[in-house]
Amino acid sequence: MARLAENKYGKSRVRVMRVLHGHNGHELHEWTVQVLLHGDFEPCFTEGNNSKILPTDTMKNTVYSLARNSSAECIEDFAKEMIDFLLSRNSQVSGVEVNIAEAAWDHLKVHGASHPTTFVQTGGENQTTQVQKSRGGEFTVISGLDNLIILKTAGSAFEGYIKDSLTTLRETNDRLFGTALRANWTYDTPKLDFAGLRGRTREAMLAAFAGHQSKSVQHTLYEMAEQALAAVSEIREIELVMPNKHCLLVDLSKFGQDNPNEIFVPTDEPHGQIEARICRE
Amino acid sequence: MARLAENKYGKSRVRVMRVLHGHNGHELHEWTVQVLLHGDFEPCFTEGNNSKILPTDTMKNTVYSLARNSSAECIEDFAKEMIDFLLSRNSQVSGVEVNIAEAAWDHLKVHGASHPTTFVQTGGENQTTQVQKSRGGEFTVISGLDNLIILKTAGSAFEGYIKDSLTTLRETNDRLFGTALRANWTYDTPKLDFAGLRGRTREAMLAAFAGHQSKSVQHTLYEMAEQALAAVSEIREIELVMPNKHCLLVDLSKFGQDNPNEIFVPTDEPHGQIEARICRE
Amino acid sequence: MARLAENKYGKSRVRVMRVLHGHNGHELHEWTVQVLLHGDFEPCFTEGNNSKILPTDTMKNTVYSLARNSSAECIEDFAKEMIDFLLSRNSQVSGVEVNIAEAAWDHLKVHGASHPTTFVQTGGENQTTQVQKSRGGEFTVISGLDNLIILKTAGSAFEGYIKDSLTTLRETNDRLFGTALRANWTYDTPKLDFAGLRGRTREAMLAAFAGHQSKSVQHTLYEMAEQALAAVSEIREIELVMPNKHCLLVDLSKFGQDNPNEIFVPTDEPHGQIEARICRE
Amino acid sequence: MARLAENKYGKSRVRVMRVLHGHNGHELHEWTVQVLLHGDFEPCFTEGNNSKILPTDTMKNTVYSLARNSSAECIEDFAKEMIDFLLSRNSQVSGVEVNIAEAAWDHLKVHGASHPTTFVQTGGENQTTQVQKSRGGEFTVISGLDNLIILKTAGSAFEGYIKDSLTTLRETNDRLFGTALRANWTYDTPKLDFAGLRGRTREAMLAAFAGHQSKSVQHTLYEMAEQALAAVSEIREIELVMPNKHCLLVDLSKFGQDNPNEIFVPTDEPHGQIEARICRE
Repeated sequence: MARLAENKYGKSRVRVMRVLHGHNGHELHEWTVQVLLHGDFEPCFTEGNNSKILPTDTMKNTVYSLARNSSAECIEDFAKEMIDFLLSRNSQVSGVEVNIAEAAWDHLKVHGASHPTTFVQTGGENQTTQVQKSRGGEFTVISGLDNLIILKTAGSAFEGYIKDSLTTLRETNDRLFGTALRANWTYDTPKLDFAGLRGRTREAMLAAFAGHQSKSVQHTLYEMAEQALAAVSEIREIELVMPNKHCLLVDLSKFGQDNPNEIFVPTDEPHGQIEARICRE
Repeated sequence: MARLAENKYGKSRVRVMRVLHGHNGHELHEWTVQVLLHGDFEPCFTEGNNSKILPTDTMKNTVYSLARNSSAECIEDFAKEMIDFLLSRNSQVSGVEVNIAEAAWDHLKVHGASHPTTFVQTGGENQTTQVQKSRGGEFTVISGLDNLIILKTAGSAFEGYIKDSLTTLRETNDRLFGTALRANWTYDTPKLDFAGLRGRTREAMLAAFAGHQSKSVQHTLYEMAEQALAAVSEIREIELVMPNKHCLLVDLSKFGQDNPNEIFVPTDEPHGQIEARICRE
Repeated sequence: MARLAENKYGKSRVRVMRVLHGHNGHELHEWTVQVLLHGDFEPCFTEGNNSKILPTDTMKNTVYSLARNSSAECIEDFAKEMIDFLLSRNSQVSGVEVNIAEAAWDHLKVHGASHPTTFVQTGGENQTTQVQKSRGGEFTVISGLDNLIILKTAGSAFEGYIKDSLTTLRETNDRLFGTALRANWTYDTPKLDFAGLRGRTREAMLAAFAGHQSKSVQHTLYEMAEQALAAVSEIREIELVMPNKHCLLVDLSKFGQDNPNEIFVPTDEPHGQIEARICRE
Repeated sequence: MARLAENKYGKSRVRVMRVLHGHNGHELHEWTVQVLLHGDFEPCFTEGNNSKILPTDTMKNTVYSLARNSSAECIEDFAKEMIDFLLSRNSQVSGVEVNIAEAAWDHLKVHGASHPTTFVQTGGENQTTQVQKSRGGEFTVISGLDNLIILKTAGSAFEGYIKDSLTTLRETNDRLFGTALRANWTYDTPKLDFAGLRGRTREAMLAAFAGHQSKSVQHTLYEMAEQALAAVSEIREIELVMPNKHCLLVDLSKFGQDNPNEIFVPTDEPHGQIEARICRE
């Protein structure tokens, strides 16, 4: 009566920290890895037959063991290594997906200079990747970032929208515009200087955010996507998710005070949610 | 050069609490609503033309206003009302998606009796729904639950899996098996006693979890899905997501002690991740 | 120039799950333990001399090892065992403090009956204890609970307060009153039926919360404390912390609708904060 | 029978964002404020008499209203204003405590230059203050920071500690040492250049952390405190809380690999907890 239509399994939140010992100091990478396998696992579900099951504990060990030998310098290349390794050793696996998030660690500045072996975590922003490959197929490489919290205090309006019987929002040509950006961009080919392209993509989006005369979140989102596509020709398409983290102008007139866009209440909920995928024509 | 391939927007985390005043006491519903619109919004993205944009602030007001008049007694029916209301008033909208999560509030027991106007929150489990409709189409109703934390201390094994050079896990015929269940089931038709069916679906899954001689998470997941489909004929398919929240048996032999499955360390990370969709044959 | 004025150290978030195998099923306890030592540790701070330092890793092992042999059936008694064990083996330690939080696990009901070896987590409420002892002194035992989320939809007013130029709140004789209760009560003596007394204390507070005609959070907090002291003569004093988790009545008049205390927006921030300690006369 | 021994009340998590419009751009401050009042509130608790109760909603309004007019450029000075304002208008209040946390917002760098009206949140570190004053007394000003996440990959050992039957930790002269620093320092006098002193205190602690040959967390904590006291003579005492966020060296020998301090598993729990208060001799 029942049929297994789809399944995948793996290990999530495998944290690994890699310290590279260079001549002039250390480098530090903190990654959180998720590995998911697709394949012929039906007997496990329907009969409890585990003979084709690679334990998720072994996937965790794989992360540690590969990290030791890997020469990958970015999360995209490490994900590709993971996938090839797992496909080569597990014929029952038809496809592998690896997601990695990299935490933001920088060398600590001490008296103006980077300390070679001391690090500080700079923010909640994560650099991310999702890499997939089916047996016999090509890699699909998506790079991204998550939780990049940015805010414009000028150059943001919201006017000319629909008014109806449930409208209470006032039009404004000068508001705060804050978001926690999530972006994911897909590359055309799987062999690239991912770290370099990541930096240029991120910079293009941020420059667009800063410079834009925004008429809405949508308007700025599109500009950011367009600038990323313009800056990095290797990107095929880009998806942006931009919650509108509202900063509410406080009505101080009750207290006999004006409020020329100075005092706001930042809020987490409810929030606007704007999502779009932009591709090359 | 760039083209808007896909987009949606709306309001997230709209919280509303509805108190129903009955003859014998109150009822309390706490819902967190997300509304997302699809439609012809391209000029907003590309030109900053907001003339077809219903502000997300108005969607928030819509939740409050409809909740006041609604006779919906469950989240599925309220989501349907939201969708029809938004489609009827916004011709530029081609489709609407509403997600609702309901918190777990029960009447407080005082000296063994339910107090009519006092409530206690019983756990982090949420009842959820996702309802969608395109203009001119039918409702798709998915009901679900999230974060139902359950654990078996007997009847769970994991043996017979692949061993390779990276295996360190030991086989066991007696382990703890804990998860935070997320389930989503899709109904065949959009007019149903959703609350009643929800109760039966949940109960069928839990009875299966408790009674199963588990050979793996996959094995039990499938049994739970199968029992849900068997119990509720209106369900077309069901998707279960079951993280394996490992409880590690502590090695006490170093201290001269045995540990016959008594002392464990529960862990949040890393965790196994098992996902499957099961449909009717 | 600098002097160590105060110090303590130890291990936090030591999680342990204990499964007791009875004739008619299992019992499950999930505890999160913190151990803190006071003593003569100055050379460690000032000279890096670790000769009197019991590693926090060893404290973690102590939790596991003691849990295996312990006959303690409640967190208070286990905390006392931990303290006596650590004091007896570490002459450099002058005092020990142990904090334990117990998660809420119940036997799962299947077809109306408790399943003997399947459990469900029922809510975010934790049962807590803080036990302290200085060498040669007596135990101080504080029992408590945390994050008990309760709400009254009737019997709550807030009127007659100070109005000044910054007042915008309206008086009401009928509001929602919700809180996430934290309570800590101190016992007179250290040898008691802590589990039984805990149950009676909790019940007395909840019955008071439900039955009270509340004129403010303070008013109800005091009533709850008074009822706890009345119900359990072994309690010397009790401290309650009651955030006022505001539910804001939505103004629907803008939409031509009334709102007779039916539709509210629950909020997490900002929140009122009411704290008091009540002792016996 | 019961007696109110202690009480305080107020408002928590009052969020306010202040935008200062300068000639060359904006400045942005995001503060989360807590206000707590002490005073003669007993009739409210025991009789439900609210005549001396300033509503917490009014305290929230006070934050907004004062923020508009305030010339305070740092959280310490704003807290002092809040306290004086509340004491001057509320004779029933005997003392006020204000806690403020400031989020980390920096001007966004675009093509190497600070953008005047665009900001990025740089990390989860908060700058904090706790200011208190009793009627007729002096201000006590404590400044601090919270959640400053730092890590040393060299210069950290842990050896020579107590070994007993429960020891499993191995001695090491080269380990990772990571923490999420919380620090609170108390000033001698209440009129100071708090922002400038904060910067110097923070820098002294960080330089000490980076440069220290650490023999334990305690050893480095003390060095950091000592350096802060040495750098800023206005500090009377300083309290540091340093969880030891363990990074566990992975044993790769099972897989035929060495691991010369390269591959670690960072963990959140359990963690060491080291707390000390250091004052001037």
